[in-house]
Amino acid sequence: MGRIGRRTRVRRIRPGSTDSRADTLAVEEPLEIRIGGESVSVTMRTPGSDIDFTHGFLMTEGLIDDADDISVIRYCDGVDDRGRNTYNVLDVTFREHHRSPDTAARRFYTTSSCGVCGKASLDAVRLASNYRPADDPCTVDVYTLTLLPERLREAQKTFDLTGGVHGAALFRTDGTLLAAREDVGRHNAVDKVIGWAVQERLVPLRDTILMVSSRASFELAQKAVMAGIPILAAVSAPSSLAVDLGHETDLTIIGFLRGESMNVYSAGHRVIE
Amino acid sequence: MGRIGRRTRVRRIRPGSTDSRADTLAVEEPLEIRIGGESVSVTMRTPGSDIDFTHGFLMTEGLIDDADDISVIRYCDGVDDRGRNTYNVLDVTFREHHRSPDTAARRFYTTSSCGVCGKASLDAVRLASNYRPADDPCTVDVYTLTLLPERLREAQKTFDLTGGVHGAALFRTDGTLLAAREDVGRHNAVDKVIGWAVQERLVPLRDTILMVSSRASFELAQKAVMAGIPILAAVSAPSSLAVDLGHETDLTIIGFLRGESMNVYSAGHRVIE
Repeated sequence: MGRIGRRTRVRRIRPGSTDSRADTLAVEEPLEIRIGGESVSVTMRTPGSDIDFTHGFLMTEGLIDDADDISVIRYCDGVDDRGRNTYNVLDVTFREHHRSPDTAARRFYTTSSCGVCGKASLDAVRLASNYRPADDPCTVDVYTLTLLPERLREAQKTFDLTGGVHGAALFRTDGTLLAAREDVGRHNAVDKVIGWAVQERLVPLRDTILMVSSRASFELAQKAVMAGIPILAAVSAPSSLAVDLGHETDLTIIGFLRGESMNVYSAGHRVIE
Repeated sequence: MGRIGRRTRVRRIRPGSTDSRADTLAVEEPLEIRIGGESVSVTMRTPGSDIDFTHGFLMTEGLIDDADDISVIRYCDGVDDRGRNTYNVLDVTFREHHRSPDTAARRFYTTSSCGVCGKASLDAVRLASNYRPADDPCTVDVYTLTLLPERLREAQKTFDLTGGVHGAALFRTDGTLLAAREDVGRHNAVDKVIGWAVQERLVPLRDTILMVSSRASFELAQKAVMAGIPILAAVSAPSSLAVDLGHETDLTIIGFLRGESMNVYSAGHRVIE
């Protein structure tokens, strides 16, 4: 299981009995991303797929347009107290043709601590995407949608022995699984699948569905739009701001996708019964 | 319901039927916190309890020691396109005796983009707390613990018509509810209950249990320690780093607290059968 799960002793209290047994914990560790040596973020994440995560994070934060903007990503060779590489710091070097890291860093910081005062709240946190879901005429039928939660769970089963991680998957609108990733953070799971697609040169992700095991927050909806994904499906509820973004950009948002049921919140023209 | 829930039309697809009906969305909006006019964070949150949230955030990020460190918190009078106050920016003024905002801001930024390279990962993201759970000899019996999830749900029912928000509650170890708050973000729900306690001068929160409707991540465990809470109970799983922090600080961590069952991961001496 490597660094995804870690065994621990746990005291299990059940009606009428108590025992001590081994249990598997979801591993959570900080990952620092540096651009040209300068720290731009620290994220608590499930180790693994770090290169995917970094590509996805840089894409969905608007720092790169495609994989060609990146020259090198490497783990720093820093070590912990016992002399081991922690694999918790990644340093990104942009290609020369890319807009300067300075500009990029400024754009990033704008999203994490921008001025909101005197602006509509949605404007204030919104990033400019290169792509518009409105340009993607794809559709998906209801039956195909009902298959996705189980397919995501199947993909998660391989890894998740802990009950503590979120899953995200990319599907074609015919239901074909493209990629699935998981993470203790739901944003991270989404960045990981998108980062996979960035490296596969699949962005903009036309004709695809992003399926998440969680709620659909504004930030997840925005990540979909940044990667050109036209359909976001969630096991749980969307937020108001996610639905606003859906209406505005023509991103199809489906919530409470469970069994044969679902709610369609925005851009319902893509959902065919 | 004010700004906690918002009505919307939704297309409801069920086996054999489809209709369009009104549904309630969890409202999600950005809140910017400024210290002395300077932006220190933007958080996507459920509006309401903003003052609680800000007190809790400043406490659990190590920026204040108690409510007396704050002189004024007020909404900026910025307006949106239609001339309405967005109530999405709070400006905090520290009292004169408080360490300079400059120092405070630096401490905060350290947690969100510190250097991890060459340090053990846990050290790198850890904040120094004024309190040690190890100093709190309180205990809780198993029966009382089994009552808490339902009491949290009862408190949430009042507000949550959306199925899309997390809850956090503070209980005495005898099971008495002190406060419950909810939010689209689970960290925010915790900051809101802790912020309530900061204003009530109840910090350090000795002899209390922090109950969350979600997983127990490192950051939630750290927030508990920062507020002097000795016991953290979660409906779902803890992460590896949360349990590490539990062992190290003697914070009792209970996971999968459902029905009459639970797992005890750290500092089990406080859990009496």
